Amino acid sequence: MLAVTILGNNSALPAFDRHPTAQVVTMEEQIFLVDCGEGTQMQMAKYKIRRSKINHIFISHLHGDHYFGLIGLLTSMGLLGRTQELHIYHPPALQDIIGLQLRVADIHLPYQLHFHPLAGEGVLIREGKFEVSSFPVYHRIECWGFRFREIRPFRRVNPEKARQNEVPSSFFDRLKWGESYEKRDGTIVENQWVTEPAAKAKSYAYCADTLYDERIAESVRGVDLLYHETTYLKDLEEQAGKRFHSTTTQAATIALKAGVHRLLIGHFSSKYEKLQAFEQEAREIFPNTDLALEGVTYRV
Amino acid sequence: MLAVTILGNNSALPAFDRHPTAQVVTMEEQIFLVDCGEGTQMQMAKYKIRRSKINHIFISHLHGDHYFGLIGLLTSMGLLGRTQELHIYHPPALQDIIGLQLRVADIHLPYQLHFHPLAGEGVLIREGKFEVSSFPVYHRIECWGFRFREIRPFRRVNPEKARQNEVPSSFFDRLKWGESYEKRDGTIVENQWVTEPAAKAKSYAYCADTLYDERIAESVRGVDLLYHETTYLKDLEEQAGKRFHSTTTQAATIALKAGVHRLLIGHFSSKYEKLQAFEQEAREIFPNTDLALEGVTYRV
Repeated sequence: MLAVTILGNNSALPAFDRHPTAQVVTMEEQIFLVDCGEGTQMQMAKYKIRRSKINHIFISHLHGDHYFGLIGLLTSMGLLGRTQELHIYHPPALQDIIGLQLRVADIHLPYQLHFHPLAGEGVLIREGKFEVSSFPVYHRIECWGFRFREIRPFRRVNPEKARQNEVPSSFFDRLKWGESYEKRDGTIVENQWVTEPAAKAKSYAYCADTLYDERIAESVRGVDLLYHETTYLKDLEEQAGKRFHSTTTQAATIALKAGVHRLLIGHFSSKYEKLQAFEQEAREIFPNTDLALEGVTYRV
Repeated sequence: MLAVTILGNNSALPAFDRHPTAQVVTMEEQIFLVDCGEGTQMQMAKYKIRRSKINHIFISHLHGDHYFGLIGLLTSMGLLGRTQELHIYHPPALQDIIGLQLRVADIHLPYQLHFHPLAGEGVLIREGKFEVSSFPVYHRIECWGFRFREIRPFRRVNPEKARQNEVPSSFFDRLKWGESYEKRDGTIVENQWVTEPAAKAKSYAYCADTLYDERIAESVRGVDLLYHETTYLKDLEEQAGKRFHSTTTQAATIALKAGVHRLLIGHFSSKYEKLQAFEQEAREIFPNTDLALEGVTYRV
């Protein structure tokens, strides 16, 4: 199961009961927190997110609407007696900020906090059945996107056919990854004789905040679900560009060029009370688009 | 008019839809913000507090539940185009934290921020009709209480009697402050012949977070309304002491010893879902006690 739950879908200013950016990705029995605007810990309580399942937190950039809630979450986890280690992937300066805030409060967290400064495109975590990687996006300050990917065999063994073809069960794992079997007498059992396509491994990519930039389409090529920011409607493209943000049209164009399956849009400017136009404009270009709504879980 | 509106009444962990500490004091057409826990800007929106009327912010200490919402409020004020100067009274290290957070975000606020590090008991602001001062309270780290006081004449002139006694109207202001008038022929018009007692100037004092300490009763002597923290019920006095907090009984005892008119209690531990016992226990010692409830305005 790969899914994303939205905790905050608004841009810089909280408004209309919409909160600054935060979302949680559920994958392989773990919860991954992506950005952590002010009030995220309250949103987690509201939407019953199990904090104990969070082992990894990803911060895209150091504008406050993406991280001002982090220090509160970290200290609350400590007060609640957390002892599990926690990993944070972040623009370098975040470590100084958190360190300073803990120091002046004379707080010693009861758990180990591991800081992983982001430094380039590449794999951040690769554990058993999943992988998370980072890629640059293009904002006024250093900013990162994140890609979540399940790792799973792409073939499923048909045990009856495998037996008929005398493939030992010790070879089944290799069959799942597409290998063919060579018998002792040198004859080959072709993989597709004894396997079927497995359910596809799912992937999700998160892009906020960013200018329209076609390099992003490369970074997120073919993901099942893409979250791309849409701070403004299409008529404000010039303003979006000046502020290093994107419009509905631009986000949908990236989704189209990247060949993704579905697009989720968010980071709405607080100048907009109603959001329908965001959906309409994006769907003109990329029909399989949904609004990122707070409290809603989008299964990939 | 002197009044206090509660925006957050809970201690460290947000719970039961109670928020970390923040309150606003309304006095002389201005709003004074006292502490600013995470989510304060959202609470302000919810309870329709006019941010443009805030010129002074007071931070008691650098535990997160009293200031993690400050940076978000400051940056939001900037995004909303504030140009008025803003003054912050705070434990010294706060300036480094705010400075660092603005710097890494490359944010230049469109208004002037004045930092006033707290350094001792004394007057922080004295403007026309009010005064705000600080006094130490006794917590695990440096922590301050604040006293808000109207400044107004304590006598009201009876114009008819003043005329009968030949006091010129140019002397009325001095009459209001209790002076007697000396006529040209040397005879004295006693102040009380021509004045009456005016409505009393009001005062409010805020004490969080603190151990029980009788020095506080001296610092808040005779205020009309006292806010004192009560993190725990009386049966947890030992735990309260270890954590540098107070119980209901202790807060009520301070109110009694200080001879205040009314007591407001708050900063409830998240271990308590229901709050009635807080009120009951405090009233056993100091009957004129109320719970600090979010969204409620207490007029002094």
